[in-house]
Amino acid sequence: MSIFDYFRPHRRNSASLAKERLQIIVSHERATRNGPDFLPKLQEELVGVIAKYVDIDEEQVKVALEQRDEFSVLELNITLPDCEQARKRQVENAVA
Amino acid sequence: MSIFDYFRPHRRNSASLAKERLQIIVSHERATRNGPDFLPKLQEELVGVIAKYVDIDEEQVKVALEQRDEFSVLELNITLPDCEQARKRQVENAVA
Repeated sequence: MSIFDYFRPHRRNSASLAKERLQIIVSHERATRNGPDFLPKLQEELVGVIAKYVDIDEEQVKVALEQRDEFSVLELNITLPDCEQARKRQVENAVA
Repeated sequence: MSIFDYFRPHRRNSASLAKERLQIIVSHERATRNGPDFLPKLQEELVGVIAKYVDIDEEQVKVALEQRDEFSVLELNITLPDCEQARKRQVENAVA
């Protein structure tokens, strides 16, 4: 199985139709036990970078972090607002 | 299998011993075919964010990008310089 197979989109049910999703996985394999672990700090910066390209609702960002001696895995799952919602928000911001 | 199992470190052979690795996977599932795809632009920014925390040798960054109608997957594999190399580089930069 290729790494890409893991991320292929699932068959959508009607409730999830037209939702746009972003998943970010960062895996840090350290050379030594108890080496520096910067993934917790990285989390906010990653969201900041993504927000330059798409409209992000912070309530729709789910974070999971697993930390072990020699590796850490950070997982961000972001459901993006649909195009119509994003357009409305832009209009509201322009008026305000 | 949990997503975390996929990223657990492999058993190391002697050649890979003491190497530090970072893997970043970004999967973007779009709501509509041919929606905007920002992953290619994101790539450089992600490396820039990581470089704030660890010393990155650009030759050690391997990039794979798969683009389909409804989803894109960006994979960055970065082998980090070992601590001794990084320390030497810092000293050299300080002297220069």
